[in-house]
Parts: sequence; C-alpha cells; structure tokens
Amino acid sequence: MGEFELIRRHFQRPGVALPGNVPLGIGDDCALLQPAPGFQLAVSTDMLVESRHFFPDVAPQALGHKVLAVNLSDLAAMGARPLGFTLALALPAADEAWLTAFAQGLFALADAHACPLVGGDTTRGPLNICITVLGEVRAGQALRRDAARAGDDLYLSGRTGEARLALELLLGTGWAIAHTPPDALPRLRARLERPVPRLALGQALAGLTHAAIDLSDGLAGDLGHILQASGVGAELALAELPLAPDLQALPEAQRLDCLLNGGDDYELLFSAPPDARAAIEAAARTSQTPVHRVGRIRAEPGLRVLNAAGQPVAFSTRGFDHFK
Amino acid sequence: MGEFELIRRHFQRPGVALPGNVPLGIGDDCALLQPAPGFQLAVSTDMLVESRHFFPDVAPQALGHKVLAVNLSDLAAMGARPLGFTLALALPAADEAWLTAFAQGLFALADAHACPLVGGDTTRGPLNICITVLGEVRAGQALRRDAARAGDDLYLSGRTGEARLALELLLGTGWAIAHTPPDALPRLRARLERPVPRLALGQALAGLTHAAIDLSDGLAGDLGHILQASGVGAELALAELPLAPDLQALPEAQRLDCLLNGGDDYELLFSAPPDARAAIEAAARTSQTPVHRVGRIRAEPGLRVLNAAGQPVAFSTRGFDHFK
Repeated sequence: MGEFELIRRHFQRPGVALPGNVPLGIGDDCALLQPAPGFQLAVSTDMLVESRHFFPDVAPQALGHKVLAVNLSDLAAMGARPLGFTLALALPAADEAWLTAFAQGLFALADAHACPLVGGDTTRGPLNICITVLGEVRAGQALRRDAARAGDDLYLSGRTGEARLALELLLGTGWAIAHTPPDALPRLRARLERPVPRLALGQALAGLTHAAIDLSDGLAGDLGHILQASGVGAELALAELPLAPDLQALPEAQRLDCLLNGGDDYELLFSAPPDARAAIEAAARTSQTPVHRVGRIRAEPGLRVLNAAGQPVAFSTRGFDHFK
Repeated sequence: MGEFELIRRHFQRPGVALPGNVPLGIGDDCALLQPAPGFQLAVSTDMLVESRHFFPDVAPQALGHKVLAVNLSDLAAMGARPLGFTLALALPAADEAWLTAFAQGLFALADAHACPLVGGDTTRGPLNICITVLGEVRAGQALRRDAARAGDDLYLSGRTGEARLALELLLGTGWAIAHTPPDALPRLRARLERPVPRLALGQALAGLTHAAIDLSDGLAGDLGHILQASGVGAELALAELPLAPDLQALPEAQRLDCLLNGGDDYELLFSAPPDARAAIEAAARTSQTPVHRVGRIRAEPGLRVLNAAGQPVAFSTRGFDHFK
C-alpha cells in the first residue's frame, strides 16, 4: 500500500459530505475553511509520541479518540465551535488493522462534533501523531487565560484524578494497586484513554465567564497558568473538589497528588464573577455537564489550597514537563 | 531547561508585535486569527522526520528555514497570503545551540513573509517537526488542483531538478558525482535546503489562473495530481523546460529524471487559458519570479512528454511515496 492509497483508504471519506463552512477538504495543497462573519478562528496543535503520551500497546481505536479529544479540549477551553482538523502521522509501517481501528476511533469523535478531517500528511517514521484543530468563536468572546479577576469564583467541570490513578495502575505503582478497588481499572482506564472534550460547556460559557483553561498537566499547574497570565492568585477549597469513588481509599498524600497534579483530566477550569452564578448553573444544565464551584480568585499572588476547616494544606505543584 | 522555559527562550518573542489579524498568539489554549471579511482560511500541514526528509547532520538553521518554506509553498500554490503558523516539535533533548540556530532559520523566513508563530507543542521524542500554516485567500479565488481545462497553457515557475541533484551528490551517487561541476555542491545544496516559497507569484495569480500545485514530489507526479483531479491530460515540451547549468552535463536519462521526477523543487506549476498570457507575464514581472510556458492541457488523459522535434519521449513517473 502506497502513501496515497493509505490516505484514500483510511482517511478520505467520499460518502461523507463536508459542511458548508468547509469549501475544500482533503486532496489539494491546502484545505479551505470559512469562519462565519463576526467570528475569529481558534487554532491549537498537539503532538503525541509513543511511550511518552501513550503506551506502545494502547488500543489504536482509543488512541484515535484521544489524539483528537485533547485538541478539541483546547477549543472547548476557548469557547470555540469546531470547524475541522488536520492530521499528520508518522508511522513505522502501514499496518492495515492498526490504521482501520485508529481511524474508527478518530472519526467517531470527529463525527460526534461535526469536525471533519480537512487535510494532513503521512510519512514513515517513529510513531508520532500531530493534530491541529480549527474552530470559530465570536470575536471578543474567547475564554482567555489572562482574564481572571480578583473576586471571581473558580469553577471546575467534572472531576480530576482518575486518569492519573489509571496511569499509576498501568505502571504497576504499589500505592495505587494497594488502595484501589480491584474492579476499577477498566473504568479508570477509560478516563485516561477516552477523555470527553467539554465542547458544549465551553460554548455555553463563551462571553459569560472571565478566564478558562483545559486541564492537561494537572489542576494546580494549569490553574497556575491562569494566575500567572492574569496576575492574580487563588484559593482552592479541597472540600469542594468532587472526589471520584475510586480515589476515596487512597492515602491522603496520593489522593491530593491525583486531584491537584493528576494530568490528562481534560476538564475545564474557569473563573467568573459572583453575579454570573445563575448563568453558570444554566450553562452547566444546558450543556449537561457537571460543574462545581471550587474556590475563588484573589488579588494576592500564589495558590492556597484550603482544607475543610479553611486551613492551608501543604502540597507541591508538579505540572508535567517534557524536558525536566 | 524545562518545556515552558524552552518555549519562552526560543519561540516566544515578546519584542515582536503580532499583526492586527492575530488577536492572540502563543500562550493560551488556542491562538486566535481574524481572516479579512470576504476571505477564506487556507490551511496545510507538513511533517518532517529525521533521516527521511532531512539528513541527521543538516544545519539546524537550514532545517528551520525548510520546514516553514515547504508549508508556505502550499499557501503559495493556493494563491493565499500567510496569516501565521503553529509548530509542533519532538526533540530527543533540549539542545540549546541546535534550538537557537533552528529558531533563527525559522523566524528569518517567517518575518520575511509576516507570518508569525502563533502556537504549538513541544515534547521529547525522536526528532519530528510538524508545521501547520494558515493563510487567507479571497473566497472563490483559490488556485485548486481540479480546475485545469483542456486548451490551458501550462506554466512553471523557476526550474526543477537541482534539489534532486544535490540529494544524489550528498548520497554519493556515482553518476551525479561524475557529471556535475566540482564546485556545484554548495549552490545545489542551497536549492535542496533553502527552497524559496513562491508566495508573491501565487498571490499575483489568485483569481487569474485555473489550476495550480506546488512541486514537492516531482514535476511529473505532481502534474499527475492536477490531471487526475481535473479529469484531463497534458503535453509537456522538454525543450521549454528551463535547464539549470549544473544539470547540463548529466547523461540524458538522469537529466530527465532530475527534471521530471526530482522532488523538493517547491516551484509552482499552474494552468491558465491562452487569453491570460499577458496577465501571467505581468504577474511574473510584478512578483519578480521567472515563469516559463512549458506545455498545455489536453482533453485526452495521460501525460505526454515531447522532445524538441515534437516526438514523445519515453520516461516513467516516479513521484516519491513514503510507503512504497
């Protein structure tokens, strides 16, 4: 199978019509997209590398889902609606079964969000998957990291920590195995491998909230990006953070680490003024997404994590860093 | 040096202002771009892998130039004007000297075309560089592959074959060494490593010509893409193809192979109706780009290559394919 045949067989879908805002898809020097009048284009790129972002034996269908999901999550964090994506793929070999399953996982998610594959590149090389996702957001309504204000409430969609616990179980880490229900791995693994991008929530929040970010490197580290970009600090109320049942038996230090430094959560963390509480609740309902108020933005710099008694809890931020 | 420090030090440029059509650049979940009213967004992605697209010992400055150049060439082939690009980079290690030189080559070309880096991703892994370039083109004026019509003239910018000859010299191929001037390697290597994207020409041609493509895999193979997409054939007049002085001493078969199957040329090949000849010449002058009329589009399918006497020449198309 040659390169063009590989693309034709696995990634071109002549039976699937392109939406009206994609005048030209795969097969030319460029794809053409038409954002709606008054909208800006949002663009984000993520690169996933074998053994670093995923295990070599990950199910290709789950991988196809995840590479697109992590990019769609960036659109969600801007309040943008997906327009389409490009896929660049370096493959050690053209493995038919692998490609079929990968494409299934990829397109199932793409179709669910009306986000067509519009172009890309394939080459031979160590497995590497790079997706660039394109979306649109009304000019002035994007949810930026630098827009948090002192006095804002801090909100979290869903809950954190399960993807990290799954990772520790798959790595065979002792404390994880000792304190996790024996039947938990399949559902925890789904949290790691099949994150759900919070697109409906993000779009419902556009123009409503101040700052937003999606959680890829851990709650505390990603909150740190908002605080730094906005020049503010924050208080996080541990008692308000929703705790997944599978994390309840963990020793306190590890539970805290999963919740705050977990990574791979792909939930939205956002800030909004207190007078927006009813609107935030309505956005959560409309988008059928659980949302919790978990803290507040303060003028004083730094992040304080408070226990149920309002006392500061010691912990260390440890966002993931590929070069440390 | 950590990941964020690496990005800050080498790829964020606080002193360089973003143009007005880039409301938000590096540092958020997405970048924001604002195509002009009435324009469509053109997007293209290329992935370059070590030992496949470039030699492991390539000068990083040249590599920085080339990865962006091949993407800008895709914008040129659509008649689009650059808006910005994203860069995803997998690196075996954070090598300061390498990154500094790579960024120099990259930004020199980006600045020359007012095409800012707006976002991206860095990770550890086998060296892999993936660029997605974004541009804008007036709705309906993009130069598509499927728009060639029987009777069109066929034009080529610049000339083909030198990049391929450079590659053969670097690989130590006998016929290349035996028949190339001994002082030719530096200038041939520049053709391979520092291609010039034909952006000014492409924009001057938008709305003027029928079909266009940029030559990455070889003139004959890439012309084949236009013919297939447009449902037409073509005649190519060998005598009209400009011949680089360094190719003149090659044996005929190898010369033909370099000219027609060379690859890495990054010239534009395009078709236009005969009544556009004066306008094409004007576009070539305005953009200060050499353009030659090298053949014509025919209704009969297939590609015929004719010698100076108008007789068909036997040759085999051999576009590069990563999976053959």
